[in-house]
Amino acid sequence: MTDTERTITIDLGKRSYDVRIGPGMIQRVAQAAQSLSARQAVVISETNVGPLYATKLLESLNAYGLDATAITFPAGEPNKTLPTAAKLLDVCLENTPPIDRDTLIIALGGGVAGDMAGFVAAVALRGLRWLQCPTSLLADVDASVGGKTGVDHPAGKNLIGAFHQPAGVLIDTETLHTLPLAELRNGLAECVKHAVIRDETLLDFLRQHSKTLLAVQSDDPAKLAFDGEVMVELIARNVAIKAAVVAADEREAGVRAHLNYGHTIGHAIETHIGYDNIRHGEAVSLGMVAVNHIAAARGMLDPAVADRVKETLAGLELPVAVGPNPLDTNEIWRIMQHDKKNRGGKVRMILPTALGSVDIHDDITSQEVQKAVAALVGEN
Amino acid sequence: MTDTERTITIDLGKRSYDVRIGPGMIQRVAQAAQSLSARQAVVISETNVGPLYATKLLESLNAYGLDATAITFPAGEPNKTLPTAAKLLDVCLENTPPIDRDTLIIALGGGVAGDMAGFVAAVALRGLRWLQCPTSLLADVDASVGGKTGVDHPAGKNLIGAFHQPAGVLIDTETLHTLPLAELRNGLAECVKHAVIRDETLLDFLRQHSKTLLAVQSDDPAKLAFDGEVMVELIARNVAIKAAVVAADEREAGVRAHLNYGHTIGHAIETHIGYDNIRHGEAVSLGMVAVNHIAAARGMLDPAVADRVKETLAGLELPVAVGPNPLDTNEIWRIMQHDKKNRGGKVRMILPTALGSVDIHDDITSQEVQKAVAALVGEN
Repeated sequence: MTDTERTITIDLGKRSYDVRIGPGMIQRVAQAAQSLSARQAVVISETNVGPLYATKLLESLNAYGLDATAITFPAGEPNKTLPTAAKLLDVCLENTPPIDRDTLIIALGGGVAGDMAGFVAAVALRGLRWLQCPTSLLADVDASVGGKTGVDHPAGKNLIGAFHQPAGVLIDTETLHTLPLAELRNGLAECVKHAVIRDETLLDFLRQHSKTLLAVQSDDPAKLAFDGEVMVELIARNVAIKAAVVAADEREAGVRAHLNYGHTIGHAIETHIGYDNIRHGEAVSLGMVAVNHIAAARGMLDPAVADRVKETLAGLELPVAVGPNPLDTNEIWRIMQHDKKNRGGKVRMILPTALGSVDIHDDITSQEVQKAVAALVGEN
Repeated sequence: MTDTERTITIDLGKRSYDVRIGPGMIQRVAQAAQSLSARQAVVISETNVGPLYATKLLESLNAYGLDATAITFPAGEPNKTLPTAAKLLDVCLENTPPIDRDTLIIALGGGVAGDMAGFVAAVALRGLRWLQCPTSLLADVDASVGGKTGVDHPAGKNLIGAFHQPAGVLIDTETLHTLPLAELRNGLAECVKHAVIRDETLLDFLRQHSKTLLAVQSDDPAKLAFDGEVMVELIARNVAIKAAVVAADEREAGVRAHLNYGHTIGHAIETHIGYDNIRHGEAVSLGMVAVNHIAAARGMLDPAVADRVKETLAGLELPVAVGPNPLDTNEIWRIMQHDKKNRGGKVRMILPTALGSVDIHDDITSQEVQKAVAALVGEN
């Protein structure tokens, strides 16, 4: 098998852009920046990813004649805050030569770097163009499509932000070889989500390739050994699903809400346990199990389907239950009431009716959530 | 003469909205909020205007069945900063009941309140709908059209922000009777700008009505005594001019730059002298005189036209020269190089060719600016 390159166009009228997926894609960033007639670029990254790629990226931008600067901020979701964004804006706005509307922001890193750099691009000079170079599977299959940018607030995740579409996304699958395995699983949770809401065959693909996807290199178990072509195919399928949903509903007024499957409870679990203590994908995995429980309890979903999803998640080494310390169900309900996806003061949730099919429900009760969350307590 | 009401539609496709102008318009805000199916409203105002109208506005919102909260921030351009926005976001995001995407932000006040409240609306939950209730002539004729929101940064004005169109604008001309005369003149500078870039007859209207517009009440000289119908007509004409420009170029990629006439030098003077020490309209007045000087020196503009604009500004009691302390021309040029309207590292400026007609120029030299700024030194 040889590695292949794939391009998927995100169809948003004037705001359309291409997602390009393949090995070595990071070496194409400077060319992409030049083709956008950028004169200047500011690379925004975080302290984990920046040291790996920023220097090379700056060199290649310079080689293409662009004035380029790199800024890094402390890695990790707890740093995805407005004060961090303010510091990055200070550096951008005090840059020499001064940034202008031809300046391009380049987001380099996982979801946190993309959300942060995208938000800086959204509000600097009332909106600069930006390129997104995601370096985690989660960012590849989720944040790379849709133009959501933003930061967290003590009251909840992503409560401050903007919709600001990038001018292009370049996904370098080679960067995933140095991704921690737990971070890869983080992205696989979103792949399962896409399968449940839109594509049963993707669930089969994930089951079929779970071993390949989770493989580590025999001589260096800290490095991942996935098959490159399988990875490109996985990312391309997921980008295409998300692209279709987003193209149908750019500003999240309708079907885009389907992407929130597993996330209402997932976000609440994440806020409750603390962003430091659980990964997003792990919380979403638990959220999907819980919401399937609600759908099955309502008689909307065949319990066998719920089990099949649960088995797939377990096969991808994602959590499907919490340990001996049960979650505070009242607290989780309280957090859910603050979810920004809610409408008219009601908690909004996406319930599956079959593999590949979901509906929006605004009549979720605290009792249902409490039962579903309580059912998560057990052995993984 | 009787007061009349006028409505001008800002034609921006899906983002179109109406600007309604007339006496007592503030009493229609609650009805407008209800017609947008808002369940909850957050009124954002500042410490000058809030005490005058916020309580009545909250009462009328409550009477229409909306849950409503008012927040005020310290008045004045120096407070139009990201830290102030962060504090307002804290209050919004910690509101009880929690805000959601059906929450409406209502901006109440002059340009600072509109820019600030609009920016909070732009980034809270990645974008809430908002109504704008401007209470100064400057905000009425300028900020009420176009959806520009944002805050200042030490490096320059409005460097952080977003384009976020309001759902509607309600201009209550009665609020202008308590506006300080200097603030009214502030707005008149933008009216002159609109005349120069698009409408010679508006310049005649301003000359014809300058006495009426600047009149104060004989029993209370702190209150303005303008003719209500003239004021509605003036605002409507200016809103219509700006609406046509913005509709042709919502995101400032082309002709919207014409609105920057007088502002490149004006903003630099404002930054140089300090936002506390000069009003925006005064700086723009000086900026227009300076830029007309450049256009005349290039042989593009008949000096008699430049004189006519200068006389109109003087007739409206706007500054056309600076006093004995000359401006630091090098510093002004340095600030202009940071202007966010620049492209490709060049200073962009709008030069008039006749009354009602302007062009965009990217080849402005520091020598031209220095001569024009030096020519401002003299007697008003």
